Amino acid sequence: MSKQRDVWLREVGTRDGLQSIATIFPTAAKLEWIRLEAAAGMPEIEVGSFVPPKLLPQMADSAEVVAGAKRTPGLRVSVLVPNLRGAENALASGADQLNYVLSVSEAHSRANVRRSVQEAMDDFRRIIEYRNARPEFRHVRVAGGLATAFGCTIAGQVPVSEVFDAARKMIELGADEIAVADTVGYANPAQCRQIFREVLAIVGDVPVTAHFHDTRGLGLANVDAALDVGIRRFDASLAGLGGCPYAPGASGNVVMEDLVFMLEAMGLSTGVDLDGLLEARGHMERHLEGESTRGAFVKAGVPKGFVLAGDDVASRGGRA
Amino acid sequence: MSKQRDVWLREVGTRDGLQSIATIFPTAAKLEWIRLEAAAGMPEIEVGSFVPPKLLPQMADSAEVVAGAKRTPGLRVSVLVPNLRGAENALASGADQLNYVLSVSEAHSRANVRRSVQEAMDDFRRIIEYRNARPEFRHVRVAGGLATAFGCTIAGQVPVSEVFDAARKMIELGADEIAVADTVGYANPAQCRQIFREVLAIVGDVPVTAHFHDTRGLGLANVDAALDVGIRRFDASLAGLGGCPYAPGASGNVVMEDLVFMLEAMGLSTGVDLDGLLEARGHMERHLEGESTRGAFVKAGVPKGFVLAGDDVASRGGRA
Repeated sequence: MSKQRDVWLREVGTRDGLQSIATIFPTAAKLEWIRLEAAAGMPEIEVGSFVPPKLLPQMADSAEVVAGAKRTPGLRVSVLVPNLRGAENALASGADQLNYVLSVSEAHSRANVRRSVQEAMDDFRRIIEYRNARPEFRHVRVAGGLATAFGCTIAGQVPVSEVFDAARKMIELGADEIAVADTVGYANPAQCRQIFREVLAIVGDVPVTAHFHDTRGLGLANVDAALDVGIRRFDASLAGLGGCPYAPGASGNVVMEDLVFMLEAMGLSTGVDLDGLLEARGHMERHLEGESTRGAFVKAGVPKGFVLAGDDVASRGGRA
Repeated sequence: MSKQRDVWLREVGTRDGLQSIATIFPTAAKLEWIRLEAAAGMPEIEVGSFVPPKLLPQMADSAEVVAGAKRTPGLRVSVLVPNLRGAENALASGADQLNYVLSVSEAHSRANVRRSVQEAMDDFRRIIEYRNARPEFRHVRVAGGLATAFGCTIAGQVPVSEVFDAARKMIELGADEIAVADTVGYANPAQCRQIFREVLAIVGDVPVTAHFHDTRGLGLANVDAALDVGIRRFDASLAGLGGCPYAPGASGNVVMEDLVFMLEAMGLSTGVDLDGLLEARGHMERHLEGESTRGAFVKAGVPKGFVLAGDDVASRGGRA
């Protein structure tokens, strides 16, 4: 099987998923999940978050998880960092990539992290400078994320000009990747086309990732729209784990295995094996205590006559 | 509120939904569902099916339902007809539109209705001729549907040339509409772009409807792809009712209220009121006996700052 990928996927369930549920996963269970999903071909996994353990006990073992995940050959081990202190710890842990996220919405930024957008951007600059000043960390990638880029539960609509300004600043500061996130599940396909088309024009050669939540059922429709304007990197989580714990089944990330099925069916190679993903899903679900999971592919399986991307594109109708 | 529609929707839950579930809806419950959904602005409802009552007891009251639905001002009352006999009964009932469906897949056609595709096409010709020969029915529209157009559970892949040939023949015979159906939930967005682009080129001015099932979670992504190449008519069902009764939650039609939300969010006016839809959904659900329903919008509601299509397009980011 060719491992050339048309689309780069990042599993975020081990961070965005686990931080949203009540069940505490033991470190060994996280590492087995990571091992199984990496074995299925997942190229990148956000394995944890360097937030204060008091705030998120679920993420208290992130350094240990990074160390374990780093033993998986070929896997890009990325972690979320909320500030410079978190970035220092993440770099010390040996992570391959730091994902820093700021809220484009001023109201959301102040409510969530008690900082203005400008202060949050200053933190991003400090993280990049810290990394740049230390030769031993020069190979570590620092991604800049734009939360609430499609709307905000506090402010409502977020002006697109503020999304574009923030992307531009992060690129100037030296971001190795820009992630544009629909943190609260407000995005629609028309908005995705508009925002991603412009962000791609702003960033030049820097990769852009789309991070969608499925709150209103539009996750995969938004993926289609993002693909349509040229996005080839997506965050998702196995079984859609994540979202708001107070609205079971209503929220969560895009379901990874449904996303992989869609991309492969469209003729876009992900390098990820669907059977292996379902094995990882089964493992993860055995540790849940009452949380519901989602997903259509797990029930329906592949269609009869289904051809993986790259195997026989012509007979299936070609690429979009 | 402007009632100019950018997209024409057809509720099919009262046919495709009800025929797939065990609960038998009383005629009065069907009519109340139709009344509520029409009051919410739904322009067309497929209210029943003129199949032999022995085969589908749920649809035995279709003539009565048509008569009741016809009292709703402005509603296009359409029905499914499986053959000429069904079409005669449907015309006598006073329906505004007959939806005839043939399977493009030879294997599916023979297994499902014990006819070849050619025999099924001959039936379509007879239905059109019957209608044309009777001045009192000249105003009744006859739509030609192409089932298994995206794949078949028996044959697997269905050659696109056979889909296009069938569409061409139906247009030559005088179809007033072409519906292209992903009967078994095999479609992906790339395939949708390819097939709908070509079908639109074949049909000229005749309207084309997309009918998707959500079996693998790609329903709304397929809608986005179909919109992208110019489709502006969709079938869907309230709460996603329908699909296979043996795989609860795994199948069913595209969820109507999620679809309406997506279209309105994209700046495409449907003429349908979301609150009214949810009221109809609540009514319908009260009659279910154990069947599960689906839908994200019903749990999440509209985003803060949401603007309906046509109200303030510019501030939301414009149309796709």
